[in-house]
Amino acid sequence: MNKMLAIAVGKRILKVRKSKKLSQDRLAILAKIDRSYIGRIERGEVNITLEILYKLSETLGCDPKELLP
Amino acid sequence: MNKMLAIAVGKRILKVRKSKKLSQDRLAILAKIDRSYIGRIERGEVNITLEILYKLSETLGCDPKELLP
Repeated sequence: MNKMLAIAVGKRILKVRKSKKLSQDRLAILAKIDRSYIGRIERGEVNITLEILYKLSETLGCDPKELLP
Repeated sequence: MNKMLAIAVGKRILKVRKSKKLSQDRLAILAKIDRSYIGRIERGEVNITLEILYKLSETLGCDPKELLP
């Protein structure tokens, strides 16, 4: 797994989430993604798919490209 | 699976690949991705991961964001 990529993407997701004052629980519910998976994504522990990237960006109200390093 | 997303990404990968005059075989070898998987990606049949997106964009010499709709 490309650990650096996963960590960089995770950090951006966490940053945007916090800027929107959303908790991980709230993001998980809104994006219909498992709460623990959100945590693993933000810690850079998983190599997410484009579908997950788009679900998150749509929920966060940002361009998916903003979440890419 | 978000079929529209997969198809849109596949079309962009195919377009960039052709602009670089690379065959699917050549792209597969250079990106170290299975040749048949490249075909499935370009036909929009799979939901690729960010890691695969970055491998392809690096091999194609383009920004990964260029491959996103």
